[in-house]
Amino acid sequence: MKYTARGVEGLKIAYIGGGSRGWAWGLMSDLASAGDMHGEVALYDIDFEAAKNNEIIGNKFNGIEGATSEWTYRATETIGEALTGADFVVVSILPATFDEMESDVHTPEKYGIYQTVGDTTGPGGVIRALRTIPMIEHIAKSIEKYCPNAWVINYTNPMTVIVRTMYRVFPGIKAFGCCHEVFGTQKLLAAMLKEEYGIEGVKRDEIKVNVTGVNHFTWLTSAKYHDMDLFKLYREFVDKYAETGFTKGKDENWMNNVFECSHRVKFDLFNRYGYIAAAGDRHLAEFCEGKWYLENPEAARAMGFGLTPVSWRKENLKERLAKSEKLRSGELPVEIKETGEDGVKQMRALLGLSDLVTNVNIPNKGQIPNLPMDAVVETNAVFRDDSLNPVSAGDVPAEIRALIMRAVSAQEMVVEAGLTRNLELAFAAFCNDPLVTCSLSDARELFNQMVENTKAYLTEYFK
Amino acid sequence: MKYTARGVEGLKIAYIGGGSRGWAWGLMSDLASAGDMHGEVALYDIDFEAAKNNEIIGNKFNGIEGATSEWTYRATETIGEALTGADFVVVSILPATFDEMESDVHTPEKYGIYQTVGDTTGPGGVIRALRTIPMIEHIAKSIEKYCPNAWVINYTNPMTVIVRTMYRVFPGIKAFGCCHEVFGTQKLLAAMLKEEYGIEGVKRDEIKVNVTGVNHFTWLTSAKYHDMDLFKLYREFVDKYAETGFTKGKDENWMNNVFECSHRVKFDLFNRYGYIAAAGDRHLAEFCEGKWYLENPEAARAMGFGLTPVSWRKENLKERLAKSEKLRSGELPVEIKETGEDGVKQMRALLGLSDLVTNVNIPNKGQIPNLPMDAVVETNAVFRDDSLNPVSAGDVPAEIRALIMRAVSAQEMVVEAGLTRNLELAFAAFCNDPLVTCSLSDARELFNQMVENTKAYLTEYFK
Amino acid sequence: MKYTARGVEGLKIAYIGGGSRGWAWGLMSDLASAGDMHGEVALYDIDFEAAKNNEIIGNKFNGIEGATSEWTYRATETIGEALTGADFVVVSILPATFDEMESDVHTPEKYGIYQTVGDTTGPGGVIRALRTIPMIEHIAKSIEKYCPNAWVINYTNPMTVIVRTMYRVFPGIKAFGCCHEVFGTQKLLAAMLKEEYGIEGVKRDEIKVNVTGVNHFTWLTSAKYHDMDLFKLYREFVDKYAETGFTKGKDENWMNNVFECSHRVKFDLFNRYGYIAAAGDRHLAEFCEGKWYLENPEAARAMGFGLTPVSWRKENLKERLAKSEKLRSGELPVEIKETGEDGVKQMRALLGLSDLVTNVNIPNKGQIPNLPMDAVVETNAVFRDDSLNPVSAGDVPAEIRALIMRAVSAQEMVVEAGLTRNLELAFAAFCNDPLVTCSLSDARELFNQMVENTKAYLTEYFK
Amino acid sequence: MKYTARGVEGLKIAYIGGGSRGWAWGLMSDLASAGDMHGEVALYDIDFEAAKNNEIIGNKFNGIEGATSEWTYRATETIGEALTGADFVVVSILPATFDEMESDVHTPEKYGIYQTVGDTTGPGGVIRALRTIPMIEHIAKSIEKYCPNAWVINYTNPMTVIVRTMYRVFPGIKAFGCCHEVFGTQKLLAAMLKEEYGIEGVKRDEIKVNVTGVNHFTWLTSAKYHDMDLFKLYREFVDKYAETGFTKGKDENWMNNVFECSHRVKFDLFNRYGYIAAAGDRHLAEFCEGKWYLENPEAARAMGFGLTPVSWRKENLKERLAKSEKLRSGELPVEIKETGEDGVKQMRALLGLSDLVTNVNIPNKGQIPNLPMDAVVETNAVFRDDSLNPVSAGDVPAEIRALIMRAVSAQEMVVEAGLTRNLELAFAAFCNDPLVTCSLSDARELFNQMVENTKAYLTEYFK
Repeated sequence: MKYTARGVEGLKIAYIGGGSRGWAWGLMSDLASAGDMHGEVALYDIDFEAAKNNEIIGNKFNGIEGATSEWTYRATETIGEALTGADFVVVSILPATFDEMESDVHTPEKYGIYQTVGDTTGPGGVIRALRTIPMIEHIAKSIEKYCPNAWVINYTNPMTVIVRTMYRVFPGIKAFGCCHEVFGTQKLLAAMLKEEYGIEGVKRDEIKVNVTGVNHFTWLTSAKYHDMDLFKLYREFVDKYAETGFTKGKDENWMNNVFECSHRVKFDLFNRYGYIAAAGDRHLAEFCEGKWYLENPEAARAMGFGLTPVSWRKENLKERLAKSEKLRSGELPVEIKETGEDGVKQMRALLGLSDLVTNVNIPNKGQIPNLPMDAVVETNAVFRDDSLNPVSAGDVPAEIRALIMRAVSAQEMVVEAGLTRNLELAFAAFCNDPLVTCSLSDARELFNQMVENTKAYLTEYFK
Repeated sequence: MKYTARGVEGLKIAYIGGGSRGWAWGLMSDLASAGDMHGEVALYDIDFEAAKNNEIIGNKFNGIEGATSEWTYRATETIGEALTGADFVVVSILPATFDEMESDVHTPEKYGIYQTVGDTTGPGGVIRALRTIPMIEHIAKSIEKYCPNAWVINYTNPMTVIVRTMYRVFPGIKAFGCCHEVFGTQKLLAAMLKEEYGIEGVKRDEIKVNVTGVNHFTWLTSAKYHDMDLFKLYREFVDKYAETGFTKGKDENWMNNVFECSHRVKFDLFNRYGYIAAAGDRHLAEFCEGKWYLENPEAARAMGFGLTPVSWRKENLKERLAKSEKLRSGELPVEIKETGEDGVKQMRALLGLSDLVTNVNIPNKGQIPNLPMDAVVETNAVFRDDSLNPVSAGDVPAEIRALIMRAVSAQEMVVEAGLTRNLELAFAAFCNDPLVTCSLSDARELFNQMVENTKAYLTEYFK
Repeated sequence: MKYTARGVEGLKIAYIGGGSRGWAWGLMSDLASAGDMHGEVALYDIDFEAAKNNEIIGNKFNGIEGATSEWTYRATETIGEALTGADFVVVSILPATFDEMESDVHTPEKYGIYQTVGDTTGPGGVIRALRTIPMIEHIAKSIEKYCPNAWVINYTNPMTVIVRTMYRVFPGIKAFGCCHEVFGTQKLLAAMLKEEYGIEGVKRDEIKVNVTGVNHFTWLTSAKYHDMDLFKLYREFVDKYAETGFTKGKDENWMNNVFECSHRVKFDLFNRYGYIAAAGDRHLAEFCEGKWYLENPEAARAMGFGLTPVSWRKENLKERLAKSEKLRSGELPVEIKETGEDGVKQMRALLGLSDLVTNVNIPNKGQIPNLPMDAVVETNAVFRDDSLNPVSAGDVPAEIRALIMRAVSAQEMVVEAGLTRNLELAFAAFCNDPLVTCSLSDARELFNQMVENTKAYLTEYFK
Repeated sequence: MKYTARGVEGLKIAYIGGGSRGWAWGLMSDLASAGDMHGEVALYDIDFEAAKNNEIIGNKFNGIEGATSEWTYRATETIGEALTGADFVVVSILPATFDEMESDVHTPEKYGIYQTVGDTTGPGGVIRALRTIPMIEHIAKSIEKYCPNAWVINYTNPMTVIVRTMYRVFPGIKAFGCCHEVFGTQKLLAAMLKEEYGIEGVKRDEIKVNVTGVNHFTWLTSAKYHDMDLFKLYREFVDKYAETGFTKGKDENWMNNVFECSHRVKFDLFNRYGYIAAAGDRHLAEFCEGKWYLENPEAARAMGFGLTPVSWRKENLKERLAKSEKLRSGELPVEIKETGEDGVKQMRALLGLSDLVTNVNIPNKGQIPNLPMDAVVETNAVFRDDSLNPVSAGDVPAEIRALIMRAVSAQEMVVEAGLTRNLELAFAAFCNDPLVTCSLSDARELFNQMVENTKAYLTEYFK
């Protein structure tokens, strides 16, 4: 790369999972409007045709209205080709297919176990992690081989397990995990300011928060707007909406709008623990005792959120495939639309084009002194010239430490189980998961079934 | 006190709960046969008559067969009188009556929650802690006032919560908690050596173990007999008895024999985690997910242990009251019978009459570096001249850390809730307890009922 | 205060030591050109006339060329008047007079001990700390009383000892210490880029550094410019200039230019330890063994730096007094001239007007995991809406930890000695100081003399 | 080995440095009178003839008066032969010869640097460590190869550096370092009880102490005899003898009596820091600033201790060689005489024949939470059946932490320097040593000379 009057030229981004129908287009849009970053995006996907399609779509972004940067897209047949010379690596893959995810999410229902998402924690999260870890191992080793100095941005779930695996496999990796769930809570606080206090136009990143915890189970221990302490306002807000939920000021972002909630889980957790849980209720519920919010679909609905069936995902994929074809053929024009994601801003900051403070998932180096060192945690961090340093979040409050530690311990065990191909260790984490509310023998039966259902992607465990 | 040719003379022991029918007589027996310790035992009890009874019984021990020490017993009307000048304080009380315990143990059954003991953790443990903490506060403050340099031995449950409360109230206290559950596991290992390997006559304290965890949920990370690594033998042993349980070599100690188990919980935990859980199965089961071993009384029985109904305790109390009367009147002669407890040995060691290494409950000063500092933990410790130092147990293994941390966090919250009279905080611990497998609204209902049932002993919370 | 279209209006800044001739004028200039901050500065000084003078001078800044903010200056007769209602408190005092400083710096010379500055560490730093701590105690208690929510910026030396004292006295204080020494090293790196690599126009804050250590003995463990790793370049640079020193690219800032150095100490430390010491050589030398760089004035000169005699300070004060009179009378016009200090930028960020990442002195909350918790350390921190969070600097490298730990331990002892008025404890720190190279009996004699010389300001220790 | 009625039979001890004239004979005596341990001692030495001599001498111990155990001695030509099948390994070597030690101790005198011992710290200690580390590397690797499960007892200096090296090279090693210096302080306290309080017959191990720090710079933070707090008595004792020293109750042990001191260093440190330094003054002085106690030989003498010249060691060696010949030939009969060392007691305890609590040097696993993990520290530890667990010593008091941390940091650097053959890193430790009071350029000159003088044993560094 080269620093010029136009910013940085000659950048190379490797996109693993580059055949994506969705995230990829958002990234293309954000890159096209970055202004001061230019270069090439290498698209690698195990489905080469999909990557090829995105090559065509990506190249259409140059010169359209609002485009201020130039990027060339190129599908590659090997991961090595994509990674060689890369300055950044984006990892955004679907581990296996929605058939496996169907097993992850719906098999446990026979045992009275309901999951909203099933990709992070709970029985689904554990099984998904098991099949993902060997894939990430391969990717991390390839990065070590082809571009050890590249910055690696992961968007894939289970986030924590994946980032931890990357560091276990290649300790020198410069990887971090990127997630927009905290943004949603900042938006909720902005909506509160508007609806309750008449303060208009506050942007989500003007709400300054201290973030702590693990991905999808993050908490705010402080939230400020100018000199206003939002915790005080939030207490009144929760008092008002704890029973009814709050549904105004919804996020209109195309990525999120099918996954709404009315924040009643968040409000209930605030009442109990005194801190603001900062992820969608669908994610939060999965980290709590199964009987709290996910006893059954009706209970979830009563709390103002729904379970996302994998059938919806399958249907949605069909739509996205159709959209992909239209974008490729030109029937549908590509257009620039801000995604609200921080990925491109993070790249800019790492290139030294501006400082950025935002939340991120990286190994604990003391940013949360009372969680285990090296576990992957989510806190704010400072992105600057080729450096990423976590911001000290302080100790996790005692009230929520137990909940978070349980998640951390499970994640650490799953990573160990995955790296050592040890299904017994995986079961130890599985049967202690807050959502696994069935008996021990049923848990064993369920685990075996879920492994069986997804066996095609677990061959490493049966060698 | 004074060091003489006979050992130490002029000692004063204050016994809080000195009207006890059971523990007190065991202590009397151990003291009578100590040989080199002599002095006075002051018996204080809110039931003065009971203490008076024990004064009479205690004084009968002097000069009987096997008695090698001289002790005078004296009931006192005030706690101050008992504590003034004390070298040791024994705390062994029943917080409230068996009616309250009946609520602790059996009210949750309406919600499908079964408890084996209900005095340590689970819904019963939490409510019992709430009423005990103010009592302990009073005792600790009295110790600070009347005998700040005395060594304080607690036998009362919930052990961890009580010892922690003592240190929170009077940080300079020299208190520790004493429990025989680990001994039972040492005996199990000795029985294994006898039954499986033909090695006879091994005493429980010849099995050298590294103890870690919290009271009633303690674990061994190492067990040796001479140069034999007992973990290797235990693995074979568990393979053999995991399904059937092991019922030979039972402990005949009068204190324990109604509380038997066949160790299947212990064996199951070993199979899952690779470490030896070191308490009776009845206690261990209460620290695990409710659906594992306590789904219902049949499930418990199938695992080889029973639930102890409070009706049994009430019946048993009647027998002990009758025995008390007989001992007092002389109808039944007092006799010396070793209890197997370490209490008197610990006193001897603290007096400098011999070194002792045994397990004990004290605040964490680094003996378990990856559990929170100051939380009360159970490890080995060295008792010597007026000093008690924990033995480094090392980090708790990752596999079981999550389970233990959950207990530690709950205990810390309950202590905080008790000291600040904060029932909402207590509920936060309550509803996250592994045994509270009902819905959140049922948990709330149950909590309220249990508080209501025991209200007479919770007046401090409603001021 | 109030957020308006003009930014924030109605701010109140309390300036303790507001009679200053120097720093005060710089702050006035920075405030006048802040643009979006407006309000009042209350000037408190034990020399009321000096404060009154600055009131007149400060009020002249409104409306002059370059002034974009409006500020009213007002001298107050009591500290309470100044602090009441303050949003920010600036602490910039001279503890005692230059006569006491003369003793601090020059008395040790009789024992062969030479100091460059004598206000931070060394025998002078210890004695200065002893007389300053009671003053800071008074200030911190006043802040607790009059404006507990204000942000407190300390500029006074000994920086670490003062900030630590503030937190010891009032744990809820929102204080931080602000120092420009790291900036000088950033400028050195910018000068290196210009002189050696022809890269022009790099501003000091475009050099992104990871800062660690304690004030005046700070180290960089990483330094980047865009994608350039400056450590590699610095190694070549040191190879080239280790013997001769580097004197180009000097800082022309009016505050610094009499205190020059040729960076040979910095280069020598880099050769030995592999990390970039980031303060002026005059400060660095005082934290090292006395025989390394301060054996005598000639040795210092040979290393390219001079000792600052207090006679120079006395002379300089006369000039500043004269300048003060001219500014007051209008003989000399006030003018806006950027100071390069971060103080006003920090205030802007704390008001939420922009994020800021810069180095700062605050208690260790895990930002340097292998230095003692709560000790005051210097690292980067994020300033945002009413919040200040340290950036994780990671572990101090083993190579320099011993040097830094020695300083930390001494500072902790001096604070303890000061707060408990314990001169014996102060001597324990004193005689173990790296600069105290004389015998133990000489050290005692010297300590006594220095205490005697400054007794008028140590009355608290002799009550 | 085999457990029989006689205790343990068939033991094998490998003695590295088995040609020793002194320690070896003490060990032979202690083994002969152990009573319940029997087996073989394999003597390995680079001087095979010396080992052969000791084979002859050792075998004479069987059956003499007081002998209660049977041991066969056998010199081996290779280290592998000695180690194969060993249950215990004793490491007691002289790294190089007294010629090298002469350089270690006396070369620095030209620069005004005086050392009392020169084998642990100071310039001599650093250089000695450099030549010892590769030897220990070889030994540790051999242990890993031939007897990975053996217990390894090191007696060689520099103790800390050697034990740390063993664990760095073979992390699974079961090694500990054994030193009698703390015993001397226990004896001093016993002498105090006798001389000042008329309490006769107290044995050194009846004084129960809490030991903390590093070898030869150990401290007691508590000392008790029965219910007596010896710190209170010691304060009076120090008041009485601080000026004159205390010379009664001298240790008559043959190993120590040429190395006397009057404890004035110990008393002076107590007055300054409030804790009891627990090693001979000759060792303590070397860990303090050079100007405190070692400014010159007269200053040392004035403090009541002398410098041990290497010429004395050379002379003494001649005597020991003569004695060796006499023992071998039978001119002098072997005899049993208790050494007061703990080595054989430790072996007994590790075999499960009795519990033992004594001080020992092992890696920090939390026994001193505020010193770096894994650094080798000296605290009490519990020796039992095949296990060794440190006793929690608690945090090192703040007052002495700086002194100890300086030593720890230097030792860590020296080990790293030795293992990586990095003389520059060694110099960084060297020039920051408290005893290196000369200028930086003189330090460099001295370092180079000392390396040059001992080059024959530093060949690994010049490959």
